[in-house]
Amino acid sequence: MKKKIRVVQYGVGPIGASIVKLMRQKQALVMTGAIDKDTEKAGRDLGELVAAEDAPWGIPVSADPAEVLSHPTDVVVHSTSSSLTDVASQLMECLEAGACVVSTCEELSYPFRKYPELAAKLDEAARESGVTLLGTGVNPGFVMDKLVLGLSAACQRVEHAKAVRIVDAAKRRLPLQKKIGAGLSVEDFQQRVVEGRVKHVGLPESVAMLSDGLGLDVDTITETVEAVVATDTIRTEFLEVQPGQVAGIHQIARGIARGVEKVYLELKMYVGAPEGSDTIHLTGEPNLSLVIPGGTHGDLATAAVAVNVIPALLAAPAGLRTARDLPFCFFPPLAPP
Amino acid sequence: MKKKIRVVQYGVGPIGASIVKLMRQKQALVMTGAIDKDTEKAGRDLGELVAAEDAPWGIPVSADPAEVLSHPTDVVVHSTSSSLTDVASQLMECLEAGACVVSTCEELSYPFRKYPELAAKLDEAARESGVTLLGTGVNPGFVMDKLVLGLSAACQRVEHAKAVRIVDAAKRRLPLQKKIGAGLSVEDFQQRVVEGRVKHVGLPESVAMLSDGLGLDVDTITETVEAVVATDTIRTEFLEVQPGQVAGIHQIARGIARGVEKVYLELKMYVGAPEGSDTIHLTGEPNLSLVIPGGTHGDLATAAVAVNVIPALLAAPAGLRTARDLPFCFFPPLAPP
Repeated sequence: MKKKIRVVQYGVGPIGASIVKLMRQKQALVMTGAIDKDTEKAGRDLGELVAAEDAPWGIPVSADPAEVLSHPTDVVVHSTSSSLTDVASQLMECLEAGACVVSTCEELSYPFRKYPELAAKLDEAARESGVTLLGTGVNPGFVMDKLVLGLSAACQRVEHAKAVRIVDAAKRRLPLQKKIGAGLSVEDFQQRVVEGRVKHVGLPESVAMLSDGLGLDVDTITETVEAVVATDTIRTEFLEVQPGQVAGIHQIARGIARGVEKVYLELKMYVGAPEGSDTIHLTGEPNLSLVIPGGTHGDLATAAVAVNVIPALLAAPAGLRTARDLPFCFFPPLAPP
Repeated sequence: MKKKIRVVQYGVGPIGASIVKLMRQKQALVMTGAIDKDTEKAGRDLGELVAAEDAPWGIPVSADPAEVLSHPTDVVVHSTSSSLTDVASQLMECLEAGACVVSTCEELSYPFRKYPELAAKLDEAARESGVTLLGTGVNPGFVMDKLVLGLSAACQRVEHAKAVRIVDAAKRRLPLQKKIGAGLSVEDFQQRVVEGRVKHVGLPESVAMLSDGLGLDVDTITETVEAVVATDTIRTEFLEVQPGQVAGIHQIARGIARGVEKVYLELKMYVGAPEGSDTIHLTGEPNLSLVIPGGTHGDLATAAVAVNVIPALLAAPAGLRTARDLPFCFFPPLAPP
């Protein structure tokens, strides 16, 4: 019988809490620590912090990564920020401690175009420690890239890939509702878009993954971010949006090769959206479409994707990997350690 | 620059021909030979046999596997029969010659329950030669197993998996229309089902893959094969079905764990079916459904899946692998050798 896989959670926000509770269900895993820089969380019991039914767990949350990582760790599940430059030093510290890392950092999902040097540095650090680093989640990491590549396995030829995701953000957590600008004036929304504070991060990364995976040779990636404006009052668990205020975002990313569109990704994420859906369409031989009625639940699925990939992460060659490289699968809760 | 991947086609029926034409489009591949035991095919030019526009190719089809396999071969794409016992010696000969093999043999897709000894023998032969063996195609290998596992990556918990595939066989090749009994009397159909001559092969293999991949602990796999009887006259390119004759098959396979159904796979494949479709439903946390409107085109997709997997096959560890282990992906035609 193998030893259990020792896991540390880095970042215990809403997604991190969901990940922690899911990992607790896997017999092959044992939680050995948790890191969060928030001083209101540090020192608390992890089980109590995530409101687990079987709390306390006897696992303190620590604000000191070095202390936690000084104990033997097989995998760090990292969930602190969408920005790769913000989290790169956190990732480096984990890799240098000899831990594999799966992160929900959107910009890590396919960082080779936007951050070629940082990607090379992370890859090198992972190889030197003989561990694997991966950025993934529901989007990027699943709906608009991995699932598109999965569908393309049934195609003889692919000329164009399209994915459209519609999410009713009213059912999502507060940080997401804020990230999409719900409740802002249109003017504030536009200002925050300029500042990079309101936006779903990851569409260009998905375009780049699709370009490489489908051989579409995209030379230019464009992205637009617009406001969806509420026409009626919308109330969520967390906030209220008045008519004329922003309900959320409408983003379109395109991949262009020599002037011709090859990839089209469209994301509408706003409070009060009708029933969500994920739709993929591949143009080629044959044309092939796929629909997920209701859409993939963002928060549940991000935690699921990050945890389910752990066995494949441990089996993968050392270095910086992407969702493109790994088989996507389910991690059975009773799988032997 | 790496050398091109040297591929041999083993079996040049309708599916084999489709595979050959697709492989010809991949710059990373070079066709070095073809095997078919049919004496009417042996000796002919492969390009002419598959009606390629750029025929002749200067590649003769040979009835002698040993002769073809005496030349260095990286990958054999094998497509001769659904029955693993029928093809095992063919596969062994390829493995012993040091070639990786991807086969469309349905029973090879997940052979561990029905043929544990033969699976172990093939696995051992592949490991001894340091090569990889894989059985895959559209079904089994994609629609009712791999795609289900792919979708499950977004689930936190899976209690039950269901897949329903409806195929209008009128659009398919003659061997498939015969395999489903189109044009037979109901009595003849039932007789041939008993003899194992009319049936789609692969549903129990998909059930077994799902049970293992989803941790559903299935102890019993059942399968029923019934006739779909025509109510109107149906004409296809190849045959005519009268009212009262068999239009095709309706198969249901179930995976049961301690008396409780965990997997339900239903296949309706008949001439005159309304528009096809593939539908997956996972019951768990969250429930998740997926629809491919129109359905995955069987013949195009089987060739696509078998060819697209070649790079992943070459990168995989030696031994008998399954679709469950490998990332499914597209093989870009201009990928460098």
